[in-house]
Amino acid sequence: MQSNSNTGNTVFTHETVPTQYVDVKGSKFAYRSFGKQGGIPIIFLQHFTGTMDNWDPAVTNALAKNHHVILFNNKGVSTSSGKTPDSVAEMANDALDFIKALGYSQVDLLGFSLGGFIAQNIAANHPSLVRKVVLAGTGPIGSEGITNLESVINEGFKDGPANALINLFFTKSEESINAGRAFMKRLQLRTNERDTPSTNETIGAQAKAIITFGYLKDDDHKQLSAIKQPVLIVNGTSDLIVPSINSYVLSQHIINSKLIIWGDAGHGGLFQYHEDFVREVEIFLSK
Amino acid sequence: MQSNSNTGNTVFTHETVPTQYVDVKGSKFAYRSFGKQGGIPIIFLQHFTGTMDNWDPAVTNALAKNHHVILFNNKGVSTSSGKTPDSVAEMANDALDFIKALGYSQVDLLGFSLGGFIAQNIAANHPSLVRKVVLAGTGPIGSEGITNLESVINEGFKDGPANALINLFFTKSEESINAGRAFMKRLQLRTNERDTPSTNETIGAQAKAIITFGYLKDDDHKQLSAIKQPVLIVNGTSDLIVPSINSYVLSQHIINSKLIIWGDAGHGGLFQYHEDFVREVEIFLSK
Repeated sequence: MQSNSNTGNTVFTHETVPTQYVDVKGSKFAYRSFGKQGGIPIIFLQHFTGTMDNWDPAVTNALAKNHHVILFNNKGVSTSSGKTPDSVAEMANDALDFIKALGYSQVDLLGFSLGGFIAQNIAANHPSLVRKVVLAGTGPIGSEGITNLESVINEGFKDGPANALINLFFTKSEESINAGRAFMKRLQLRTNERDTPSTNETIGAQAKAIITFGYLKDDDHKQLSAIKQPVLIVNGTSDLIVPSINSYVLSQHIINSKLIIWGDAGHGGLFQYHEDFVREVEIFLSK
Repeated sequence: MQSNSNTGNTVFTHETVPTQYVDVKGSKFAYRSFGKQGGIPIIFLQHFTGTMDNWDPAVTNALAKNHHVILFNNKGVSTSSGKTPDSVAEMANDALDFIKALGYSQVDLLGFSLGGFIAQNIAANHPSLVRKVVLAGTGPIGSEGITNLESVINEGFKDGPANALINLFFTKSEESINAGRAFMKRLQLRTNERDTPSTNETIGAQAKAIITFGYLKDDDHKQLSAIKQPVLIVNGTSDLIVPSINSYVLSQHIINSKLIIWGDAGHGGLFQYHEDFVREVEIFLSK
């Protein structure tokens, strides 16, 4: 599939790249492939409720200048068919099947939040497939605070859905809120062929997967110790969804890691500080 | 003093710059000034027991390419006369007096360990003097674990003084130990006009200052909240002297901060990862 004429053309951007579909064990997975061809692709693993349209074009387009970027909807999410499973391990298997369906033997992973839980699982269990990993706004098995997901989300939605992502991904400072508004505008830059929202069934399964992940125990951090690949860990200081201390815990147990925590930023630190984030990712992937 | 013909000449390096002396309220302070002239100087604030010779030329020379670098021995340390005080606050006042004696109205501070305690004090209390701050291997007032200083140091010295800095600043991995050995070699690159070791009296006063700093309380982190300047915080994941969690705490309470924690590194993470450290400092100081 790497030579598919419609994928990864550098002419395409986040805004213009057509959605494609690939058969993954009987399910139809939607994906968007663009950016520089020929190198190891970056597979983006998305957060709770998110679709391909929830990736920030300031990040995807900037990374696409030097990398092959692949966004996708995991099983049952938005335009991908099938039933979304209710465990991180099954979601990791689905993502793995998707990567195999595209025919890649080596990839980099960029996982945000729930996508970071999935990325850890794949990186630990498939060391030859995964070269490098970027973990944003995420944490280990048993992450402190993520079992509170529903109350945190409800609080984020208290003044309506329009402000929910700003409430949940940014802090209460004027600077961070302004960054959140700019982020929300960027999410609308793609106007054609937008994803449908995730169904309540998918959101329920994802919520169960996240909360279960929070109750699971991995006291010796066996999964993190199994990750020998280079890992870049980023977050804001004030993550409401996956509390920032979990990023610190990741760095304590992933031997080949670099942790970055930005001040006055939340779960969406990678979008608030998208220039610094892209710069760090570029250096991380190139060395 | 900024036009002193013998200071800050770009011809000089860490290895070749002559030691100069300046009168600071009746004490004679030793300093070394080199690098690019005309901008805001970086004042380096040194760790427990350290002298100017304990700065890594891989860091100082690299930063000197684009910045005016000033190393000094604080009151009573090595070649500086006077009696080393036994509190961080007094050491901060001495450093402040030194900066004023050189005639600077604005500086950047780079504080390592005890030097970081001092840098926080100056930055919080003198916002117009201090433009930006780099804090390495350090923590806030009441830092967790630093009251164990003596047992940690004794453990570091258990196989003799030659290995003490490697034991205390690096981890037990082969890679980190090798980085430690390379660091130790770099510390010997300057052969002329080396500093004398700190006296036991100075070391005792510094130890008391550090342990007292660990017992002090600043529960609301008033000092950190008072620091509004941009602050770059760095450490390794496995700091034995100022446990790494203290760097995380700094980032939680300094609003305009960026935290970096390198994997498989200790207190001396800035020396183990000197290339990444210099790159980060350059970007931090330039933006």
